[in-house]
Amino acid sequence: MAAAAPPPPPTPAPEGFNDVPRGSTPMGYPLFSRIRLAHPTDVPHIHKLIQQMAVFERLTDLFVATESSLSSTLFTSPPFQSFTILVLEVSETPFVEHLQCNNSAYPPTIKTHNLDLPIDDAERDLFRSNGGDAVVAGFVLFFPNYSTFLGKPGFYIEDLFVRECYRRKGLGKMLLSAVAKQAVKMGYGRVEWVVLDWNVNAIKFYEEMGAKILQEWRICRLTGDALNAYVNA
Amino acid sequence: MAAAAPPPPPTPAPEGFNDVPRGSTPMGYPLFSRIRLAHPTDVPHIHKLIQQMAVFERLTDLFVATESSLSSTLFTSPPFQSFTILVLEVSETPFVEHLQCNNSAYPPTIKTHNLDLPIDDAERDLFRSNGGDAVVAGFVLFFPNYSTFLGKPGFYIEDLFVRECYRRKGLGKMLLSAVAKQAVKMGYGRVEWVVLDWNVNAIKFYEEMGAKILQEWRICRLTGDALNAYVNA
Repeated sequence: MAAAAPPPPPTPAPEGFNDVPRGSTPMGYPLFSRIRLAHPTDVPHIHKLIQQMAVFERLTDLFVATESSLSSTLFTSPPFQSFTILVLEVSETPFVEHLQCNNSAYPPTIKTHNLDLPIDDAERDLFRSNGGDAVVAGFVLFFPNYSTFLGKPGFYIEDLFVRECYRRKGLGKMLLSAVAKQAVKMGYGRVEWVVLDWNVNAIKFYEEMGAKILQEWRICRLTGDALNAYVNA
Repeated sequence: MAAAAPPPPPTPAPEGFNDVPRGSTPMGYPLFSRIRLAHPTDVPHIHKLIQQMAVFERLTDLFVATESSLSSTLFTSPPFQSFTILVLEVSETPFVEHLQCNNSAYPPTIKTHNLDLPIDDAERDLFRSNGGDAVVAGFVLFFPNYSTFLGKPGFYIEDLFVRECYRRKGLGKMLLSAVAKQAVKMGYGRVEWVVLDWNVNAIKFYEEMGAKILQEWRICRLTGDALNAYVNA
C-alpha cells in the first residue's frame, strides 16, 4: 500500500503578515488522513459511527448493536480472513507516529488533502483518537465472500461510512480504494456491497468508482422469529 | 442436527402380487436423502452443479470457475468459519454408513421421502457419489457475514442448487433449513442470500420459508479491469 509523502512545511508568512488567515495562502487548509487497521480500543468510535449510519439510512429501528456485542464478535481472526475494519482518521497536523497502528498485514495509508475551507467538526471531542490531534472520521467493515462462477474469493463491504462534515473530500473514495487494492493484492475477483435505490448520490459515486449496479437481484433475509423457528424444524 | 429415523422395510407384497409395481403400495417410492459437509473429493460434482446453475440463471458468460480454481480456494478453513459447502445426496436405498462423512462439526442430516413416482435421473452416472447407490442431487455454499446493526455475524448463502429432476420434493427446503439451523445453533442473527427478480418460483419458495425480500437494496459490483485498475490507484 503506497503512502503519500508528508507535505512540505507551510511557507512562512511574510513579515508583517502573521495575522493573515492560513486559508489565504496557496496551501489552503491541509488535512491529513490515515487509513489503518482497527483495533479493539476503536470499538466505542465504531459503535457511534454505525449509529450515525443507521440514522442516515433511516433504519434506526434495526440498530440494536452495543459496544459489547461488537467487541465480542469482531477481532476474532487475523485481518482479511474474516470480519475486517479499517478506520479513517484525519488531523490538521501530519501523522508522524505509526507505532500504534503499524501492522505487517497492513501498513497505514496516508494522504494529504488541501482544502479551501477549514472543517468545522462539532463532534471533534466525541471522536478524538488516542488523545492526539487526530479524530476518527469514518470506517469500512468488510469480509471475504466467494463467487462460485469465478471460482475465487472476493470482498463484501458491509459498511462504508464517512461522517457528514468530512464528506465530498475524497475520503470515501480512499476507503473504497483501500479495500479494492487489498482485493487485487490477494488475487480476489470481486468487491461487492449494496446501496439503497433512493441514494442517488451514492449510486453516482459508486459508478464513478467503476462499479456496476446489478438491477435484477434482490436480497432475501431470514431473521428474528422466522430464523429462530428453524431450531426445531 | 436431528436425523430422521430410517423407515420400516417395505410391506411384503401379498402372495400372487409380486408383479404389482411398487408405486401401487401405500409406501410409494422411498427416496433417502442425506446432507453432509462436502470434502475435496466432491469438487468435480460441485463444479458440474455450479455449471448447471449458471445455465439456469442464464449467466453462463460469467462462469469461468474450474475444478482446479475451486479446489485451491475452498476447504481452506474449518467448517462454518469461512466458505462452507453442504452436499445433498439421494439414494433409493437407505444410507447405512456414515463413516466417510461423520464429522463432529456437523453430523449428517438424513430424511426419508415417499414419492408417488420414481425419479428418472438421466445424469445418475455423472453424479454418482463414492461408487455406491447414492447420487449428488444438490449443494449449498455459504459463509459468515456480519451485521453491524445487530452487532453479530450471520450466514450468507452464495449458492443453493438442486438438480432439475429432484426439485419440488422438499430437498431445497432441507438445504436452506440446514443453514438456518446452523445459524441459530451458533447464535447468529441472520441468513441472507439473493434472488433474481424474475425468478418468481424461487421468491415464492423463499417467502414461504419465512424470508423477507428487500426491495430497496441493489448490489454494487467492482470486478475485472475496473477492479484491477485499483492496484496502482
